[in-house]
Amino acid sequence: MSYVRELAQRAKDASRILANLSTDVKNRALNAMASLIEEKAELIKRENEKDLKAGEEAGLSKALLDRLLLNDKRIGAMAVGLREIAALPDPVGEVVKMWKRPNGLMIGKMRVPLGVVGIIYESRPNVTADATGLCIKSGNAVLLRGGSEAINSNRVIVDILKEACAQAGVPEDAVSFIDTTERSAVLEMLKLDELIDIVIPRGGEGLIRFVAENARMPVVYHYKGVCHTYVDKYADLGMAERICYNAKVQRPGVCNAMETMLVHKDVASEFLPAMCERFKEAGVELRGCEKTRALVPWVKEATEDDWYEEYLDLILAVKVVDSFEEAVNHINKYGSHHSDAIVTENYERGMRFLREVDSAAVYVNASTRFTDGFEFGLGAEMGISTQKLHVRGPMGLEDLTCCKYVILGCGHIRE
Amino acid sequence: MSYVRELAQRAKDASRILANLSTDVKNRALNAMASLIEEKAELIKRENEKDLKAGEEAGLSKALLDRLLLNDKRIGAMAVGLREIAALPDPVGEVVKMWKRPNGLMIGKMRVPLGVVGIIYESRPNVTADATGLCIKSGNAVLLRGGSEAINSNRVIVDILKEACAQAGVPEDAVSFIDTTERSAVLEMLKLDELIDIVIPRGGEGLIRFVAENARMPVVYHYKGVCHTYVDKYADLGMAERICYNAKVQRPGVCNAMETMLVHKDVASEFLPAMCERFKEAGVELRGCEKTRALVPWVKEATEDDWYEEYLDLILAVKVVDSFEEAVNHINKYGSHHSDAIVTENYERGMRFLREVDSAAVYVNASTRFTDGFEFGLGAEMGISTQKLHVRGPMGLEDLTCCKYVILGCGHIRE
Repeated sequence: MSYVRELAQRAKDASRILANLSTDVKNRALNAMASLIEEKAELIKRENEKDLKAGEEAGLSKALLDRLLLNDKRIGAMAVGLREIAALPDPVGEVVKMWKRPNGLMIGKMRVPLGVVGIIYESRPNVTADATGLCIKSGNAVLLRGGSEAINSNRVIVDILKEACAQAGVPEDAVSFIDTTERSAVLEMLKLDELIDIVIPRGGEGLIRFVAENARMPVVYHYKGVCHTYVDKYADLGMAERICYNAKVQRPGVCNAMETMLVHKDVASEFLPAMCERFKEAGVELRGCEKTRALVPWVKEATEDDWYEEYLDLILAVKVVDSFEEAVNHINKYGSHHSDAIVTENYERGMRFLREVDSAAVYVNASTRFTDGFEFGLGAEMGISTQKLHVRGPMGLEDLTCCKYVILGCGHIRE
Repeated sequence: MSYVRELAQRAKDASRILANLSTDVKNRALNAMASLIEEKAELIKRENEKDLKAGEEAGLSKALLDRLLLNDKRIGAMAVGLREIAALPDPVGEVVKMWKRPNGLMIGKMRVPLGVVGIIYESRPNVTADATGLCIKSGNAVLLRGGSEAINSNRVIVDILKEACAQAGVPEDAVSFIDTTERSAVLEMLKLDELIDIVIPRGGEGLIRFVAENARMPVVYHYKGVCHTYVDKYADLGMAERICYNAKVQRPGVCNAMETMLVHKDVASEFLPAMCERFKEAGVELRGCEKTRALVPWVKEATEDDWYEEYLDLILAVKVVDSFEEAVNHINKYGSHHSDAIVTENYERGMRFLREVDSAAVYVNASTRFTDGFEFGLGAEMGISTQKLHVRGPMGLEDLTCCKYVILGCGHIRE
């Protein structure tokens, strides 16, 4: 048996035990993980130092080196995160629905773990602890494949997590790490659909496309967030300005930040000049349609490509639309089905926007920046899905489970 | 643009309109489909005759020719099925949950259609109408790819369904049919993940594996049903006999029929001889473990392969187990995670079986034959999933939708 298959097989075996562990035992493991990570902070930093040094030698960019770095603050955050997951309700075993059939059969849907969750991720070594915490709490075994640039950091974190499992009476194979930088290991992993139940890639678009195209098991991912805010003709323009500013400027480098602002033609001349001025002061580069530029001449010209663009930066595309319908069509055509908002005081338009925009999160009168597991009240998230099956939007603990049917009879047979 | 891509693009465009149609309009389309199918029964039979003739010439088996056949009864059943789907509640637009965050944001989950559903199926032309009915009712466009042996039947049915759409004001592209027997069309379809949201293969294991391995979009399927009934030491043996007999004999050719019977050693000598005798009278061939054969010597010897086998016939594998745990482990190892039952009067064992058996449908004291959309009260089903993501077990109307987040604010911005 190959190395990767053996790891996956052992994860599968462990998952059978994990699925039936009590919440107490799982929480004990998570709390032990948090304590051990704090205790062994120096060790983690030493191993992380090796990765940083190798990264520098390999000429990694400053941004990548920063993502790789584990300092006391980030190590502390890993521990806090694990304790927060321990404090969340356990989704496993919940009967979400149960009904009685005319023949008296009771039929219900019970939440159970998925089994083995594969995580393929780049650079950030804190994902190792976060993802493990979510998987263990939801009764899943986790099979981790981190980036080669973080291998020393990931290895030591996994050792610590395994030690905590052993302390708490959780099988050590509940946390497995593919400890090789061979690229072929990823491809092998993606073929093991009889052992790995779901794969979640976290990283750049290249990684995600590779995983989506090669995996035989289901994959949950999002490529990008091209998020819109549409300022309707019935908008409270003061509110619209606050929401648009927040959606673009508060943290431009994340997937739920606004990339395109759409403005109804009837309010464009009142709204755009001041709004654009405010963006300019915040250092936002604006790229507008012709109508936008007629109103605010210093705005750069937008090309067709701009409407598809996820800038992840202080850049914003701006378009004046003739109608509500044009706004919705623009969003459904150019967007990435992530998070989109309307600002309007008109009830019917708000409700229509909710129904007609085909995105994971659709907002009325709020900033798209709220698309996040914590902000939605899920407690934590494994990532955000722009797919439609199983989960759309932030993937929380519940989304690491599925429902099986449980049927209670008293000798029922089918006629 | 290729033929298949153009069809898929038009289906995608139609799906945007379908997603926002009222329930009334969708029901009108389904009822018009039913009426037109009845009206044009003679035309359908004439086209079906062509397929039957070609099938005979090509030397199709009797069973396959029977599956291909459309007679008055089967045509009537298609119409009835469509009217039944029209009578079901519309899942689209349901807000399944809504909660308030501490900051006042209201966050809810709203059911919306998946978009474009691809169906790849073999021989049975009635699937054309059934699948279309479920997709339209749930607001999805459907892209059908039937088997070449049924192409004349499928083509005429699709023409009728499209005519009904036009009558009801539903876009005709809501129902699309890949009208070619070229095998490459399937492969092309499976690559169009930006246009087709989900693919459901219905047919033999070969077809399903091909689709699962080549599709870039999510696939919902089940390979096979290796279903078990475990007769516990605390079983009511009279009930156990009735349940096991029903699970094996009532309709052996379907995926929820029992293929392996497990019996606890403490009740084997009391239970097995009479049970086996009853199976024998029903013409069931028994293949048993050594302990079974020690009690009932005329039973044939089972090999390791028998435990994996989906007979779909009057054949049953029988095994005596030493413990509850052995039964659960056997089911999780050899089964296909479809439908499995325990017969027991012991409360704790019943509850443990529900939790520990990793199958789509887990039963206490009932026949596995109930795994079915109608029997579960879902009204109808698109198929049965033995996968874990999105849907496990019978796939009903609700499972042809997904939930998006809808967020209602009043000027909320993120701090």
